[in-house]
Amino acid sequence: MPGRDAYRDSANRLVALGSGGKTGKVWLVGAGPGDPELLTVKALKALQGADVVVHDRLTPQGILDLAAPAARMIDVGKRKSRHTLPQDDINRLLVGLAEGGLQVVRLKGGDPFVFGRGGEEMLVCRQAGVEVEVIPGVTSALAAAAGAGAPLTHRGLAQTVTFVTGHAAAGADPALDWPALARANHTVVVYMGVSTAPVVAARLTEAGRAVSTPVLVVESASLPTERRVLTTLGGLARDIEGWDGPALLVIGEVAALASVEDLSHAAAGLELKGRRA
Amino acid sequence: MPGRDAYRDSANRLVALGSGGKTGKVWLVGAGPGDPELLTVKALKALQGADVVVHDRLTPQGILDLAAPAARMIDVGKRKSRHTLPQDDINRLLVGLAEGGLQVVRLKGGDPFVFGRGGEEMLVCRQAGVEVEVIPGVTSALAAAAGAGAPLTHRGLAQTVTFVTGHAAAGADPALDWPALARANHTVVVYMGVSTAPVVAARLTEAGRAVSTPVLVVESASLPTERRVLTTLGGLARDIEGWDGPALLVIGEVAALASVEDLSHAAAGLELKGRRA
Repeated sequence: MPGRDAYRDSANRLVALGSGGKTGKVWLVGAGPGDPELLTVKALKALQGADVVVHDRLTPQGILDLAAPAARMIDVGKRKSRHTLPQDDINRLLVGLAEGGLQVVRLKGGDPFVFGRGGEEMLVCRQAGVEVEVIPGVTSALAAAAGAGAPLTHRGLAQTVTFVTGHAAAGADPALDWPALARANHTVVVYMGVSTAPVVAARLTEAGRAVSTPVLVVESASLPTERRVLTTLGGLARDIEGWDGPALLVIGEVAALASVEDLSHAAAGLELKGRRA
Repeated sequence: MPGRDAYRDSANRLVALGSGGKTGKVWLVGAGPGDPELLTVKALKALQGADVVVHDRLTPQGILDLAAPAARMIDVGKRKSRHTLPQDDINRLLVGLAEGGLQVVRLKGGDPFVFGRGGEEMLVCRQAGVEVEVIPGVTSALAAAAGAGAPLTHRGLAQTVTFVTGHAAAGADPALDWPALARANHTVVVYMGVSTAPVVAARLTEAGRAVSTPVLVVESASLPTERRVLTTLGGLARDIEGWDGPALLVIGEVAALASVEDLSHAAAGLELKGRRA
Protein backbone atom coordinates (compact mmCIF):
# COMPACT_ATOMS: atom_id res chain seq x y z
CA MET A 1 0.00 0.00 0.00
CA PRO A 2 1.56 3.33 -1.01
CA GLY A 3 2.28 5.85 1.72
CA ARG A 4 1.65 9.57 1.67
CA ASP A 5 4.82 10.46 -0.23
CA ALA A 6 4.02 7.90 -2.88
CA TYR A 7 0.67 9.57 -3.46
CA ARG A 8 2.40 12.90 -3.88
CA ASP A 9 4.98 11.49 -6.29
CA SER A 10 2.24 9.84 -8.24
CA ALA A 11 0.30 13.10 -8.43
CA ASN A 12 3.36 14.97 -9.60
CA ARG A 13 4.03 12.46 -12.34
CA LEU A 14 0.40 12.69 -13.46
CA VAL A 15 0.53 16.47 -13.53
CA ALA A 16 3.64 16.29 -15.69
CA LEU A 17 1.72 14.02 -18.08
CA GLY A 18 -1.10 16.52 -18.37
CA SER A 19 0.28 19.96 -19.09
CA GLY A 20 0.07 20.95 -22.75
CA GLY A 21 -1.87 24.09 -21.79
CA LYS A 22 -5.16 22.19 -21.51
CA THR A 23 -7.58 23.49 -18.93
CA GLY A 24 -8.20 20.94 -16.23
CA LYS A 25 -11.43 20.35 -14.40
CA VAL A 26 -12.67 18.45 -11.36
CA TRP A 27 -15.88 16.43 -11.51
CA LEU A 28 -17.29 15.49 -8.12
CA VAL A 29 -19.20 12.41 -9.12
CA GLY A 30 -21.77 10.48 -7.11
CA ALA A 31 -20.91 6.82 -7.62
CA GLY A 32 -24.21 5.65 -6.17
CA PRO A 33 -24.62 2.90 -3.59
CA GLY A 34 -22.35 0.27 -5.13
CA ASP A 35 -24.15 -1.54 -7.95
CA PRO A 36 -22.45 -0.27 -11.13
CA GLU A 37 -25.86 -0.15 -12.83
CA LEU A 38 -26.95 2.48 -10.30
CA LEU A 39 -24.45 4.94 -11.72
CA THR A 40 -26.14 7.66 -13.73
CA VAL A 41 -25.41 7.88 -17.43
CA LYS A 42 -23.74 11.22 -16.78
CA ALA A 43 -21.46 9.72 -14.13
CA LEU A 44 -20.56 6.89 -16.49
CA LYS A 45 -19.63 9.37 -19.22
CA ALA A 46 -17.49 11.38 -16.81
CA LEU A 47 -15.69 8.21 -15.73
CA GLN A 48 -15.04 7.24 -19.32
CA GLY A 49 -13.68 10.68 -20.13
CA ALA A 50 -11.41 11.01 -17.11
CA ASP A 51 -7.63 11.26 -17.27
CA VAL A 52 -7.46 10.37 -13.60
CA VAL A 53 -9.95 8.91 -11.12
CA VAL A 54 -9.56 9.64 -7.41
CA HIS A 55 -11.53 7.16 -5.31
CA ASP A 56 -11.97 5.69 -1.86
CA ARG A 57 -11.17 2.21 -0.65
CA LEU A 58 -14.80 1.12 -0.62
CA THR A 59 -15.52 1.95 -4.28
CA PRO A 60 -16.44 -1.41 -5.87
CA GLN A 61 -14.08 -2.73 -8.52
CA GLY A 62 -17.03 -3.07 -10.88
CA ILE A 63 -17.32 0.71 -10.92
CA LEU A 64 -13.60 1.39 -11.24
CA ASP A 65 -13.52 -0.98 -14.23
CA LEU A 66 -15.81 1.41 -16.12
CA ALA A 67 -13.14 4.12 -16.37
CA ALA A 68 -11.22 4.48 -19.63
CA PRO A 69 -8.38 1.93 -19.78
CA ALA A 70 -5.85 4.75 -20.00
CA ALA A 71 -7.15 6.51 -16.90
CA ARG A 72 -4.89 6.60 -13.85
CA MET A 73 -6.60 5.39 -10.68
CA ILE A 74 -5.63 6.90 -7.32
CA ASP A 75 -6.92 5.25 -4.16
CA VAL A 76 -7.07 7.78 -1.33
CA GLY A 77 -9.09 5.33 0.74
CA LYS A 78 -9.94 6.04 4.29
CA ARG A 79 -8.59 3.05 6.15
CA LYS A 80 -9.72 2.70 9.72
CA SER A 81 -6.70 2.65 12.05
CA ARG A 82 -4.30 2.44 9.11
CA HIS A 83 -2.47 4.94 7.00
CA THR A 84 -4.84 7.19 5.15
CA LEU A 85 -4.54 10.33 3.05
CA PRO A 86 -5.81 13.28 5.12
CA GLN A 87 -8.62 15.38 3.63
CA ASP A 88 -6.30 18.37 3.15
CA ASP A 89 -4.00 16.25 1.04
CA ILE A 90 -6.94 14.98 -1.03
CA ASN A 91 -7.97 18.58 -1.60
CA ARG A 92 -4.48 19.56 -2.71
CA LEU A 93 -4.26 16.50 -4.93
CA LEU A 94 -7.49 17.39 -6.76
CA VAL A 95 -6.44 20.99 -7.31
CA GLY A 96 -2.94 20.01 -8.38
CA LEU A 97 -4.16 17.49 -10.93
CA ALA A 98 -6.66 19.93 -12.44
CA GLU A 99 -4.08 22.74 -12.52
CA GLY A 100 -1.91 20.32 -14.44
CA GLY A 101 -4.54 20.28 -17.19
CA LEU A 102 -6.15 16.94 -16.34
CA GLN A 103 -9.80 15.91 -16.36
CA VAL A 104 -10.19 14.67 -12.81
CA VAL A 105 -13.08 12.52 -11.61
CA ARG A 106 -13.41 12.43 -7.85
CA LEU A 107 -15.72 9.49 -7.11
CA LYS A 108 -17.82 9.79 -3.97
CA GLY A 109 -19.94 6.96 -2.61
CA GLY A 110 -23.66 7.69 -2.97
CA ASP A 111 -24.19 11.40 -3.59
CA PRO A 112 -21.35 13.93 -3.18
CA PHE A 113 -23.47 16.32 -1.15
CA VAL A 114 -25.00 13.92 1.38
CA PHE A 115 -22.40 13.16 4.08
CA GLY A 116 -19.66 12.99 1.45
CA ARG A 117 -17.52 16.01 2.32
CA GLY A 118 -18.08 16.94 -1.30
CA GLY A 119 -18.82 20.50 -0.24
CA GLU A 120 -15.30 20.87 1.15
CA GLU A 121 -13.68 19.59 -2.02
CA MET A 122 -15.89 21.85 -4.13
CA LEU A 123 -14.94 24.93 -2.11
CA VAL A 124 -11.23 24.16 -2.32
CA CYS A 125 -11.50 23.94 -6.11
CA ARG A 126 -13.50 27.16 -6.35
CA GLN A 127 -11.04 28.99 -4.14
CA ALA A 128 -8.16 27.79 -6.32
CA GLY A 129 -9.97 28.95 -9.44
CA VAL A 130 -10.35 25.37 -10.69
CA GLU A 131 -13.54 24.59 -12.60
CA VAL A 132 -15.65 22.09 -10.67
CA GLU A 133 -18.88 20.34 -11.62
CA VAL A 134 -20.97 18.14 -9.36
CA ILE A 135 -22.85 15.10 -10.67
CA PRO A 136 -25.49 13.89 -8.22
CA GLY A 137 -25.86 10.22 -7.40
CA VAL A 138 -28.27 7.76 -5.83
CA THR A 139 -27.58 8.17 -2.13
CA SER A 140 -27.58 4.87 -0.29
CA ALA A 141 -30.78 5.56 1.66
CA LEU A 142 -32.69 5.49 -1.63
CA ALA A 143 -31.08 2.24 -2.73
CA ALA A 144 -31.64 0.57 0.63
CA ALA A 145 -35.30 1.59 0.60
CA ALA A 146 -35.86 0.51 -3.00
CA GLY A 147 -34.18 -2.85 -2.48
CA ALA A 148 -36.18 -3.65 0.61
CA GLY A 149 -39.48 -2.24 -0.60
CA ALA A 150 -39.73 0.25 2.26
CA PRO A 151 -40.74 3.72 1.02
CA LEU A 152 -39.10 6.59 2.88
CA THR A 153 -42.32 8.59 2.77
CA HIS A 154 -45.77 7.00 2.65
CA ARG A 155 -49.25 8.35 3.12
CA GLY A 156 -50.33 7.89 6.74
CA LEU A 157 -46.93 6.61 7.87
CA ALA A 158 -44.34 9.29 7.13
CA GLN A 159 -44.69 12.77 5.70
CA THR A 160 -41.02 13.67 6.16
CA VAL A 161 -37.65 11.95 6.12
CA THR A 162 -34.44 13.05 7.82
CA PHE A 163 -30.92 11.85 7.06
CA VAL A 164 -28.38 11.84 9.91
CA THR A 165 -25.04 10.11 10.45
CA GLY A 166 -24.10 7.70 13.16
CA HIS A 167 -20.92 9.72 13.39
CA ALA A 168 -22.95 12.77 14.45
CA ALA A 169 -24.94 10.67 16.89
CA ALA A 170 -21.78 9.47 18.58
CA GLY A 171 -20.04 12.83 18.79
CA ALA A 172 -19.13 14.48 22.04
CA ASP A 173 -21.66 17.19 21.20
CA PRO A 174 -23.97 15.40 18.79
CA ALA A 175 -26.19 18.44 18.21
CA LEU A 176 -28.92 16.08 17.11
CA ASP A 177 -32.42 17.08 18.05
CA TRP A 178 -33.57 13.79 19.57
CA PRO A 179 -37.11 14.91 20.45
CA ALA A 180 -37.62 15.97 16.82
CA LEU A 181 -36.18 12.72 15.50
CA ALA A 182 -38.34 10.77 17.95
CA ARG A 183 -41.56 12.13 16.49
CA ALA A 184 -43.85 9.52 14.99
CA ASN A 185 -44.79 9.58 11.30
CA HIS A 186 -41.27 10.64 10.46
CA THR A 187 -38.62 8.44 8.88
CA VAL A 188 -35.07 8.76 10.20
CA VAL A 189 -32.24 7.29 8.16
CA VAL A 190 -28.96 6.86 10.00
CA TYR A 191 -25.94 6.56 7.69
CA MET A 192 -22.93 4.69 9.03
CA GLY A 193 -25.22 3.69 11.82
CA VAL A 194 -24.12 0.24 12.94
CA SER A 195 -21.51 1.06 15.54
CA THR A 196 -23.69 3.73 17.13
CA ALA A 197 -26.98 1.86 16.82
CA PRO A 198 -27.27 1.20 20.56
CA VAL A 199 -26.80 4.92 21.31
CA VAL A 200 -29.30 5.93 18.64
CA ALA A 201 -31.92 3.47 19.90
CA ALA A 202 -31.43 4.59 23.51
CA ARG A 203 -31.67 8.29 22.76
CA LEU A 204 -34.72 7.92 20.53
CA THR A 205 -36.62 5.85 23.06
CA GLU A 206 -35.61 8.17 25.92
CA ALA A 207 -37.01 11.01 23.78
CA GLY A 208 -40.30 9.20 23.46
CA ARG A 209 -40.20 7.09 20.32
CA ALA A 210 -41.86 3.72 20.95
CA VAL A 211 -39.62 0.74 21.67
CA SER A 212 -41.73 -1.15 19.11
CA THR A 213 -40.86 1.28 16.29
CA PRO A 214 -39.75 -0.78 13.28
CA VAL A 215 -36.12 -0.52 12.18
CA LEU A 216 -34.77 -1.85 8.90
CA VAL A 217 -31.01 -2.39 8.82
CA VAL A 218 -29.39 -2.69 5.40
CA GLU A 219 -25.74 -3.55 4.93
CA SER A 220 -24.01 -3.09 1.55
CA ALA A 221 -27.20 -1.88 -0.17
CA SER A 222 -27.42 -2.88 -3.85
CA LEU A 223 -24.33 -5.14 -3.76
CA PRO A 224 -24.35 -8.94 -4.03
CA THR A 225 -23.32 -9.04 -0.37
CA GLU A 226 -26.35 -7.00 0.73
CA ARG A 227 -28.08 -8.21 3.86
CA ARG A 228 -31.07 -6.88 5.74
CA VAL A 229 -32.78 -7.40 9.01
CA LEU A 230 -36.08 -6.01 10.20
CA THR A 231 -36.18 -5.37 13.91
CA THR A 232 -37.40 -2.72 16.36
CA LEU A 233 -35.75 0.04 18.37
CA GLY A 234 -35.94 -2.31 21.35
CA GLY A 235 -34.31 -5.20 19.52
CA LEU A 236 -31.84 -3.28 17.40
CA ALA A 237 -28.68 -3.52 19.50
CA ARG A 238 -29.03 -7.27 19.95
CA ASP A 239 -30.06 -8.03 16.38
CA ILE A 240 -27.06 -6.46 14.68
CA GLU A 241 -24.42 -7.63 17.13
CA GLY A 242 -21.34 -8.56 15.17
CA TRP A 243 -22.30 -6.61 12.02
CA ASP A 244 -19.38 -4.50 10.88
CA GLY A 245 -19.96 -3.61 7.23
CA PRO A 246 -21.20 -0.30 5.89
CA ALA A 247 -24.85 -0.20 6.83
CA LEU A 248 -27.69 2.16 7.40
CA LEU A 249 -30.75 2.19 9.60
CA VAL A 250 -34.22 3.11 8.36
CA ILE A 251 -36.17 3.95 11.51
CA GLY A 252 -39.91 4.49 11.43
CA GLU A 253 -43.29 3.05 10.68
CA VAL A 254 -42.44 2.65 6.97
CA ALA A 255 -39.81 0.03 7.80
CA ALA A 256 -42.59 -2.46 8.49
CA LEU A 257 -43.38 -2.40 4.77
CA ALA A 258 -39.99 -3.92 3.99
CA SER A 259 -39.80 -7.29 2.37
CA VAL A 260 -37.01 -9.08 4.20
CA GLU A 261 -36.09 -12.70 4.61
CA ASP A 262 -34.36 -12.17 7.90
CA LEU A 263 -37.11 -11.16 10.28
CA SER A 264 -35.74 -10.75 13.77
CA HIS A 265 -37.48 -12.09 16.83
CA ALA A 266 -38.15 -8.51 17.91
CA ALA A 267 -39.95 -7.78 14.64
CA ALA A 268 -42.13 -10.85 14.79
CA GLY A 269 -44.81 -8.92 16.64
CA LEU A 270 -44.98 -6.07 14.13
CA GLU A 271 -48.01 -5.58 12.00
CA LEU A 272 -46.36 -6.14 8.63
CA LYS A 273 -48.60 -4.17 6.35
CA GLY A 274 -46.69 -4.90 3.22
CA ARG A 275 -47.23 -8.62 3.34
CA ARG A 276 -50.87 -8.87 4.14
CA ALA A 277 -52.74 -10.39 1.24
CA MET B 1 -56.32 14.28 -24.51
CA PRO B 2 -57.80 10.86 -23.82
CA GLY B 3 -60.39 10.54 -21.07
CA ARG B 4 -60.67 7.89 -18.43
CA ASP B 5 -62.45 5.37 -20.62
CA ALA B 6 -59.88 5.75 -23.34
CA TYR B 7 -57.18 4.82 -20.83
CA ARG B 8 -59.09 1.71 -19.88
CA ASP B 9 -59.65 0.71 -23.49
CA SER B 10 -56.01 1.27 -24.22
CA ALA B 11 -55.03 -0.88 -21.24
CA ASN B 12 -57.35 -3.66 -22.34
CA ARG B 13 -55.90 -3.67 -25.82
CA LEU B 14 -52.41 -3.82 -24.41
CA VAL B 15 -53.27 -6.69 -22.12
CA ALA B 16 -54.67 -8.56 -25.10
CA LEU B 17 -51.34 -7.99 -26.86
CA GLY B 18 -49.43 -9.45 -23.94
CA SER B 19 -50.93 -12.77 -22.94
CA GLY B 20 -49.04 -15.77 -24.27
CA GLY B 21 -48.62 -17.10 -20.74
CA LYS B 22 -45.65 -14.82 -20.04
CA THR B 23 -45.27 -13.63 -16.48
CA GLY B 24 -45.64 -9.90 -16.23
CA LYS B 25 -43.83 -7.61 -13.87
CA VAL B 26 -43.99 -4.01 -12.70
CA TRP B 27 -40.83 -1.93 -12.39
CA LEU B 28 -41.25 1.23 -10.33
CA VAL B 29 -38.49 3.30 -11.85
CA GLY B 30 -37.01 6.54 -10.59
CA ALA B 31 -36.68 8.76 -13.66
CA GLY B 32 -34.46 11.25 -11.86
CA PRO B 33 -34.90 15.00 -11.90
CA GLY B 34 -35.40 15.50 -15.63
CA ASP B 35 -32.06 15.46 -17.46
CA PRO B 36 -32.08 12.12 -19.34
CA GLU B 37 -28.39 11.69 -18.44
CA LEU B 38 -29.37 11.56 -14.78
CA LEU B 39 -31.22 8.30 -15.32
CA THR B 40 -29.34 5.37 -13.86
CA VAL B 41 -28.05 2.71 -16.22
CA LYS B 42 -30.48 0.28 -14.59
CA ALA B 43 -33.44 2.58 -15.24
CA LEU B 44 -32.34 3.01 -18.84
CA LYS B 45 -32.22 -0.77 -19.29
CA ALA B 46 -35.66 -1.19 -17.77
CA LEU B 47 -37.04 1.48 -20.12
CA GLN B 48 -35.49 -0.22 -23.11
CA GLY B 49 -36.93 -3.59 -22.09
CA ALA B 50 -40.46 -2.39 -21.36
CA ASP B 51 -43.55 -3.48 -23.27
CA VAL B 52 -45.40 -0.52 -21.82
CA VAL B 53 -44.35 2.66 -20.03
CA VAL B 54 -46.76 4.39 -17.67
CA HIS B 55 -45.70 7.99 -17.01
CA ASP B 56 -46.83 11.35 -15.75
CA ARG B 57 -47.39 14.53 -17.70
CA LEU B 58 -44.17 16.14 -16.46
CA THR B 59 -41.85 13.36 -17.65
CA PRO B 60 -39.55 15.05 -20.18
CA GLN B 61 -39.84 13.85 -23.78
CA GLY B 62 -36.08 13.22 -23.80
CA ILE B 63 -36.63 10.44 -21.26
CA LEU B 64 -39.68 8.95 -22.97
CA ASP B 65 -37.68 8.80 -26.20
CA LEU B 66 -35.31 6.31 -24.56
CA ALA B 67 -37.96 3.57 -24.41
CA ALA B 68 -37.92 0.84 -27.02
CA PRO B 69 -39.64 2.04 -30.23
CA ALA B 70 -42.21 -0.75 -29.87
CA ALA B 71 -43.13 0.19 -26.31
CA ARG B 72 -46.61 1.59 -25.71
CA MET B 73 -46.62 4.84 -23.78
CA ILE B 74 -49.46 5.65 -21.40
CA ASP B 75 -49.71 9.16 -19.96
CA VAL B 76 -51.61 9.12 -16.66
CA GLY B 77 -50.47 12.68 -15.96
CA LYS B 78 -51.78 14.57 -13.05
CA ARG B 79 -53.22 17.71 -14.55
CA LYS B 80 -54.11 20.48 -12.16
CA SER B 81 -57.82 21.28 -12.41
CA ARG B 82 -58.22 19.12 -15.50
CA HIS B 83 -59.16 15.56 -16.14
CA THR B 84 -56.71 13.17 -14.53
CA LEU B 85 -56.52 9.45 -13.89
CA PRO B 86 -57.17 8.84 -10.17
CA GLN B 87 -54.52 6.93 -8.21
CA ASP B 88 -56.81 3.91 -7.80
CA ASP B 89 -57.16 3.66 -11.55
CA ILE B 90 -53.41 3.90 -12.01
CA ASN B 91 -52.99 1.09 -9.50
CA ARG B 92 -55.50 -1.09 -11.34
CA LEU B 93 -53.88 -0.27 -14.66
CA LEU B 94 -50.44 -1.40 -13.46
CA VAL B 95 -51.78 -4.64 -12.03
CA GLY B 96 -53.90 -5.34 -15.10
CA LEU B 97 -51.03 -4.83 -17.50
CA ALA B 98 -48.70 -7.07 -15.52
CA GLU B 99 -51.36 -9.75 -15.12
CA GLY B 100 -51.64 -9.64 -18.89
CA GLY B 101 -48.03 -10.78 -19.12
CA LEU B 102 -46.44 -7.43 -19.91
CA GLN B 103 -43.20 -5.90 -18.66
CA VAL B 104 -44.48 -2.63 -17.22
CA VAL B 105 -42.26 0.33 -16.40
CA ARG B 106 -43.94 2.86 -14.14
CA LEU B 107 -41.80 5.99 -14.38
CA LYS B 108 -41.78 8.20 -11.31
CA GLY B 109 -40.12 11.62 -11.23
CA GLY B 110 -37.03 11.65 -9.02
CA ASP B 111 -37.05 8.60 -6.73
CA PRO B 112 -40.14 6.39 -6.39
CA PHE B 113 -39.95 6.34 -2.61
CA VAL B 114 -39.52 10.05 -1.89
CA PHE B 115 -42.91 11.78 -2.20
CA GLY B 116 -43.78 9.67 -5.23
CA ARG B 117 -46.62 7.52 -3.94
CA GLY B 118 -44.45 4.64 -5.11
CA GLY B 119 -45.17 2.81 -1.87
CA GLU B 120 -48.86 2.68 -2.67
CA GLU B 121 -48.28 1.29 -6.14
CA MET B 122 -45.84 -1.27 -4.75
CA LEU B 123 -48.33 -2.47 -2.14
CA VAL B 124 -51.12 -2.84 -4.68
CA CYS B 125 -48.87 -5.01 -6.84
CA ARG B 126 -47.76 -7.13 -3.89
CA GLN B 127 -51.32 -7.62 -2.76
CA ALA B 128 -52.32 -8.73 -6.25
CA GLY B 129 -49.43 -11.17 -6.37
CA VAL B 130 -47.70 -9.23 -9.14
CA GLU B 131 -43.92 -9.17 -9.05
CA VAL B 132 -42.65 -5.66 -8.44
CA GLU B 133 -39.13 -4.26 -8.40
CA VAL B 134 -38.10 -0.75 -7.42
CA ILE B 135 -35.23 1.08 -9.13
CA PRO B 136 -34.07 4.08 -7.11
CA GLY B 137 -33.42 7.42 -8.78
CA VAL B 138 -31.74 10.75 -8.19
CA THR B 139 -34.32 12.64 -6.19
CA SER B 140 -34.59 16.27 -7.24
CA ALA B 141 -33.11 17.67 -4.02
CA LEU B 142 -29.81 16.04 -4.93
CA ALA B 143 -29.88 17.43 -8.47
CA ALA B 144 -30.81 20.92 -7.32
CA ALA B 145 -27.99 20.90 -4.77
CA ALA B 146 -25.42 19.55 -7.22
CA GLY B 147 -26.37 22.01 -9.93
CA ALA B 148 -26.17 24.99 -7.63
CA GLY B 149 -23.12 23.87 -5.69
CA ALA B 150 -24.92 23.88 -2.37
CA PRO B 151 -24.18 20.74 -0.34
CA LEU B 152 -27.11 19.44 1.69
CA THR B 153 -24.82 18.56 4.57
CA HIS B 154 -21.59 20.40 5.30
CA ARG B 155 -19.23 20.43 8.24
CA GLY B 156 -20.13 23.28 10.56
CA LEU B 157 -23.26 24.25 8.63
CA ALA B 158 -25.58 21.23 8.56
CA GLN B 159 -25.28 17.82 10.14
CA THR B 160 -28.73 16.67 9.04
CA VAL B 161 -31.13 17.21 6.16
CA THR B 162 -34.91 16.80 6.16
CA PHE B 163 -37.16 16.46 3.12
CA VAL B 164 -40.75 17.73 3.40
CA THR B 165 -43.43 18.66 0.87
CA GLY B 166 -45.10 21.98 0.39
CA HIS B 167 -48.28 19.95 0.15
CA ALA B 168 -47.81 18.78 3.74
CA ALA B 169 -47.01 22.32 4.83
CA ALA B 170 -50.26 23.60 3.38
CA GLY B 171 -52.50 20.86 4.71
CA ALA B 172 -55.29 21.50 7.15
CA ASP B 173 -53.32 19.46 9.67
CA PRO B 174 -49.77 19.82 8.41
CA ALA B 175 -48.29 17.63 11.15
CA LEU B 176 -44.96 19.27 10.47
CA ASP B 177 -42.77 19.85 13.48
CA TRP B 178 -41.93 23.51 12.86
CA PRO B 179 -39.71 23.99 15.92
CA ALA B 180 -37.60 21.01 14.80
CA LEU B 181 -37.42 22.28 11.23
CA ALA B 182 -36.52 25.73 12.51
CA ARG B 183 -33.38 24.49 14.25
CA ALA B 184 -30.15 25.98 12.92
CA ASN B 185 -27.45 23.79 11.35
CA HIS B 186 -30.13 21.71 9.70
CA THR B 187 -31.03 21.80 6.01
CA VAL B 188 -34.73 21.64 5.12
CA VAL B 189 -35.68 20.82 1.54
CA VAL B 190 -39.27 21.62 0.60
CA TYR B 191 -40.48 19.74 -2.48
CA MET B 192 -43.28 21.33 -4.49
CA GLY B 193 -42.62 24.35 -2.34
CA VAL B 194 -43.39 27.37 -4.45
CA SER B 195 -47.08 27.87 -3.80
CA THR B 196 -46.68 27.35 -0.06
CA ALA B 197 -43.40 29.24 0.29
CA PRO B 198 -45.01 32.18 2.15
CA VAL B 199 -46.55 29.77 4.68
CA VAL B 200 -43.30 27.86 5.12
CA ALA B 201 -41.30 31.04 5.64
CA ALA B 202 -43.81 32.41 8.13
CA ARG B 203 -44.01 29.23 10.19
CA LEU B 204 -40.24 28.73 10.29
CA THR B 205 -39.56 32.28 11.41
CA GLU B 206 -42.37 32.13 13.98
CA ALA B 207 -40.71 28.98 15.29
CA GLY B 208 -37.42 30.80 15.68
CA ARG B 209 -35.44 30.35 12.49
CA ALA B 210 -33.68 33.61 11.60
CA VAL B 211 -35.27 35.82 8.95
CA SER B 212 -31.79 36.05 7.40
CA THR B 213 -31.55 32.26 6.87
CA PRO B 214 -30.45 31.67 3.26
CA VAL B 215 -32.93 30.00 0.91
CA LEU B 216 -32.04 28.62 -2.49
CA VAL B 217 -34.99 28.17 -4.86
CA VAL B 218 -34.48 25.88 -7.85
CA GLU B 219 -37.07 25.44 -10.57
CA SER B 220 -36.81 22.60 -13.11
CA ALA B 221 -33.56 21.29 -11.63
CA SER B 222 -31.23 19.72 -14.24
CA LEU B 223 -33.35 20.82 -17.24
CA PRO B 224 -32.38 23.46 -19.81
CA THR B 225 -35.13 25.65 -18.32
CA GLU B 226 -33.64 25.48 -14.81
CA ARG B 227 -33.59 28.73 -12.90
CA ARG B 228 -32.38 29.57 -9.42
CA VAL B 229 -32.57 32.39 -7.00
CA LEU B 230 -30.77 32.83 -3.72
CA THR B 231 -32.76 34.72 -1.14
CA THR B 232 -33.60 34.56 2.57
CA LEU B 233 -36.60 33.45 4.59
CA GLY B 234 -37.50 37.10 4.90
CA GLY B 235 -37.28 37.77 1.18
CA LEU B 236 -38.61 34.45 -0.11
CA ALA B 237 -42.25 35.31 -0.72
CA ARG B 238 -41.43 38.45 -2.65
CA ASP B 239 -38.54 36.97 -4.63
CA ILE B 240 -40.47 34.10 -6.18
CA GLU B 241 -43.67 35.97 -6.90
CA GLY B 242 -45.01 34.76 -10.22
CA TRP B 243 -42.98 31.51 -10.27
CA ASP B 244 -45.24 28.59 -11.10
CA GLY B 245 -43.04 25.73 -12.31
CA PRO B 246 -42.03 22.68 -10.31
CA ALA B 247 -39.51 23.97 -7.81
CA LEU B 248 -37.96 23.17 -4.50
CA LEU B 249 -36.58 25.22 -1.66
CA VAL B 250 -33.27 24.47 0.05
CA ILE B 251 -33.49 26.26 3.38
CA GLY B 252 -30.49 26.59 5.64
CA GLU B 253 -26.98 27.90 6.06
CA VAL B 254 -25.66 25.66 3.24
CA ALA B 255 -27.72 27.58 0.68
CA ALA B 256 -25.24 30.47 0.95
CA LEU B 257 -22.66 28.23 -0.72
CA ALA B 258 -24.72 28.15 -3.90
CA SER B 259 -23.34 29.61 -7.05
CA VAL B 260 -26.22 31.50 -8.60
CA GLU B 261 -26.43 34.29 -11.12
CA ASP B 262 -29.69 35.62 -9.80
CA LEU B 263 -28.89 36.95 -6.37
CA SER B 264 -31.93 38.58 -4.86
CA HIS B 265 -31.80 41.88 -3.05
CA ALA B 266 -32.57 40.03 0.18
CA ALA B 267 -29.55 37.79 -0.28
CA ALA B 268 -27.17 40.65 -1.01
CA GLY B 269 -26.33 40.94 2.67
CA LEU B 270 -25.48 37.27 3.14
CA GLU B 271 -21.95 36.22 3.82
CA LEU B 272 -21.43 34.12 0.69
CA LYS B 273 -18.80 31.69 1.82
CA GLY B 274 -18.59 29.84 -1.43
CA ARG B 275 -17.44 32.75 -3.46
CA ARG B 276 -14.76 34.22 -1.28
CA ALA B 277 -11.37 33.86 -2.92
